[in-house]
Amino acid sequence: MSARLDAQLAFLLEADRLKQITRASYLADRSRHENSAEHSWHLTLFALVLADQAPEGVQIDRVIRMLILHDIVEIDAGDAPIHGAVDTEAMAAREQAAADRLFGLLPGDQTVEFRALWEEFEAAESPDAIFAKSLDRFQPPVLNLHSEGGSWPDYDVTEEQVRSRVGPKIARGAPGLWDWLSPKLTAWFGKE
Amino acid sequence: MSARLDAQLAFLLEADRLKQITRASYLADRSRHENSAEHSWHLTLFALVLADQAPEGVQIDRVIRMLILHDIVEIDAGDAPIHGAVDTEAMAAREQAAADRLFGLLPGDQTVEFRALWEEFEAAESPDAIFAKSLDRFQPPVLNLHSEGGSWPDYDVTEEQVRSRVGPKIARGAPGLWDWLSPKLTAWFGKE
Repeated sequence: MSARLDAQLAFLLEADRLKQITRASYLADRSRHENSAEHSWHLTLFALVLADQAPEGVQIDRVIRMLILHDIVEIDAGDAPIHGAVDTEAMAAREQAAADRLFGLLPGDQTVEFRALWEEFEAAESPDAIFAKSLDRFQPPVLNLHSEGGSWPDYDVTEEQVRSRVGPKIARGAPGLWDWLSPKLTAWFGKE
Repeated sequence: MSARLDAQLAFLLEADRLKQITRASYLADRSRHENSAEHSWHLTLFALVLADQAPEGVQIDRVIRMLILHDIVEIDAGDAPIHGAVDTEAMAAREQAAADRLFGLLPGDQTVEFRALWEEFEAAESPDAIFAKSLDRFQPPVLNLHSEGGSWPDYDVTEEQVRSRVGPKIARGAPGLWDWLSPKLTAWFGKE
C-alpha cells in the first residue's frame, strides 16, 4: 500500500508543474496570461454550471474527470495556442510521449485508467468527450470577449478565423453555447 | 433560456477572479505562491488519484464537485492561512456574505444546489465532505515538504502545530494519508 501511495504522490507532485504552463489566453481582467492548471479548474466549473447544455446521455461527472486530466500532457509537451502555427504531427508525438511518462508515474491500474480517459478526450468521438471538447473551445473566446479580445489581437485573428477554428467544435457538442456566443463575436469584431 | 445562460456566464466570469487569490502555500518548486483556482484543480486531481483512500460509501464525484466549489467564496472573503492569525467568526461572516453574492449570480435552482454543496463541505459532517476536507488539509503539507518547508518557515510553524492543526482532520477522513504523512513530518522537522 505504501508503494502505491508513493507512486500516486509522485504523480501528484509532478502534476504541480501544470501551474507553470502558460496559455495564450488572458485572465478576464487581462492582468496576466492564464495557466493550464487554473484553466482546467475553470473548465470543470463550466461543466458543472453548464451541464444543462449537454446533449442527453452525457455523464457530467465523466466530463469533469476528463477535464481535470485533459491538459496534464502539457507539462512535457507545452501548450499549443489554437491560433498559433503548430506542427500538428510533431505536437501529437510529443503529447503521446508526455502521456507515457506522466501517466506512467501512477500505479499500473491507474496508468491504464487515466490514459484511457485522456485518449477518449483527445479522440473526441464519445458523447462525453465531444461535450468536454466543446467546453474547452468555448471558454477561451468567453475570456477573450471580456479582456479586450484577449489573445486575438496578439495573433491578429479575424472573426472568420475564430468562427472556423472554434465554431464547429462548440456547435457539435453544445449547440446552445454556440448560439449564445456567435452574435457576441459579430458584435465584438464589428466594433474593431 | 438565454437569460439562464447569461446568469450562468456572469457567474463563470466572476469565478475567474479565484485565479488571483493568493494562498500561503508555494508551488512545489517554491517559485511563487499558489493561487486558489489552481489549488482547487490540484485537489480535484488528488481526489481522483487518491479515491482508494476514501472510506467506503464516499462518492468521489460528489467530493470532486465540492472541491471545484470549495474556495469560490475567497473571491470576496480572501484566503485565511491555516497558520495565520484569523478572527474565525468574522471570517465565517465574510464567507457567508460572499456565498450569498457569488452563488446568487446563478439561476435560482443552481444557487440553491451549489450553496448546499458548499455548506456541506464547510460543515464537514457527511462522509463526502469529511473526505474532501481531509484532502484540503493534506495537499498543503505535501507541497511544503517539497518546497523547503513552504509556508511553515514564513509562519514559524513547529511540528507540533502542524500535527495539531492538520493531523486530526486528515486522519478523520483519510487515515491512510495521515499514516503516510506523519513520519515524513517527523523526518522533515527533525532535520531543521
